[in-house]
Amino acid sequence: MGGIPSMKGSIRISEIFGPTVQGEGPLIGRPTVFVRTGGCDYRCSWCDTLYAVLPEFREEWTLMSPAAILAQVEHLAGSTPVLVSLSGGNPALQPLAPLIEQGHRKGHTFALETQGSVPQPWFAALDWLMLSPKPPSSEMTTDWQALDDCISAAAGGPHCALKVVVFDEDDYAYARFAACRYPTLPVYLQVGNPAPLVTHTGPGSEEANIDDVMRGFRWLVDKVTADRWYAATVLPQLHVLAWGNRRGF
Amino acid sequence: MGGIPSMKGSIRISEIFGPTVQGEGPLIGRPTVFVRTGGCDYRCSWCDTLYAVLPEFREEWTLMSPAAILAQVEHLAGSTPVLVSLSGGNPALQPLAPLIEQGHRKGHTFALETQGSVPQPWFAALDWLMLSPKPPSSEMTTDWQALDDCISAAAGGPHCALKVVVFDEDDYAYARFAACRYPTLPVYLQVGNPAPLVTHTGPGSEEANIDDVMRGFRWLVDKVTADRWYAATVLPQLHVLAWGNRRGF
Repeated sequence: MGGIPSMKGSIRISEIFGPTVQGEGPLIGRPTVFVRTGGCDYRCSWCDTLYAVLPEFREEWTLMSPAAILAQVEHLAGSTPVLVSLSGGNPALQPLAPLIEQGHRKGHTFALETQGSVPQPWFAALDWLMLSPKPPSSEMTTDWQALDDCISAAAGGPHCALKVVVFDEDDYAYARFAACRYPTLPVYLQVGNPAPLVTHTGPGSEEANIDDVMRGFRWLVDKVTADRWYAATVLPQLHVLAWGNRRGF
Repeated sequence: MGGIPSMKGSIRISEIFGPTVQGEGPLIGRPTVFVRTGGCDYRCSWCDTLYAVLPEFREEWTLMSPAAILAQVEHLAGSTPVLVSLSGGNPALQPLAPLIEQGHRKGHTFALETQGSVPQPWFAALDWLMLSPKPPSSEMTTDWQALDDCISAAAGGPHCALKVVVFDEDDYAYARFAACRYPTLPVYLQVGNPAPLVTHTGPGSEEANIDDVMRGFRWLVDKVTADRWYAATVLPQLHVLAWGNRRGF
């Protein structure tokens, strides 16, 4: 309305890549094309995708229309319907309703992961909504009301799941609280990745320390089983084990 | 009927252990207690649990009543309802109906994995049935009619899934055929583990070669995505990455 017409409804994209497999959460191992949006309302201390978060990477981001995004997804996926994983940054900051609607018409399915800080009415149109509130080690503060609102927005729509990254005891206690607060949601505990690609203090290593990841995994399995928390699912990040901290996998 | 009364309905057990997490298939990462039965109608070339298969290990196996098995499960699980993973050997050779029925009454859930060579009417009482037909590298021959009968036996009951171990191109082609034959079943492709605990020629290494496993995983992801086989799920064995080929995890 009076702006630049070509920008209306555009989505800020950091990268589109795949098909590869989802490395995390309830769809672990499932082939997917990732659509990563640029921009985030959080600054997690251990963020592993700062290139999709920090304003200094903004010139790497592209404003794309839903049609252009779908064209790129379909180019990558060979014109076969595919699971599209909407990630970020925080993809809930972008106007994704038309992308989801147009993609559904072509047979694609959509999973979105967000920290749950910004509810959107179009969450109900998703196929999967992974809510990943950030634990104390992230140095962020959870707005539980916003998370409640995200879950309400999704009601009657997608499969919903909670995913909590756990680095330490405080994170674990936070995960227990989150699970207790949302007793109807399946909970995925994800081992923290101690060596992200880019840190706040400069570039990190592309080589993930698999020993560290699996040590964290064993520790978390021991915690969960000792606490008889049998409703939780404990997973490492499969893509980190397979490809380290490289981008595009 | 004329036998030794205390043996009637007994189940041949190789080991009961846990709680740990399921390392494979649709329940990957889920806390569970494993109940491994002794005895198998197959002799897969790469079997990683020969101690539950070969007759020379028979004296390690124990005949247990359903009540005794449940007592052990509940001892391990701390009297909390838990997912019980029935494995083997081929657990379909054992009379498991009373165990499942008694376990359900105590709130436990039951997942069974079998190659699908022996259908049982009590499959319908399970919560999960993982059918794992064995590909060419196993040197076994699939009885597809028996597998059909297993699926029919489970109808209206458990969640069913196909799981196929893939070591090579021939195994991959076999997996594609199996998926095509059972289009309604979700398919899990599992990377073959090149270093099982015990081989036919003697004990193997307890150290899994994680590099080999993850190389196989990347190869399989590449195959699946190149073929646009987006309905498949590709997973390594998480317990092998976490604990190597040790028993009891």
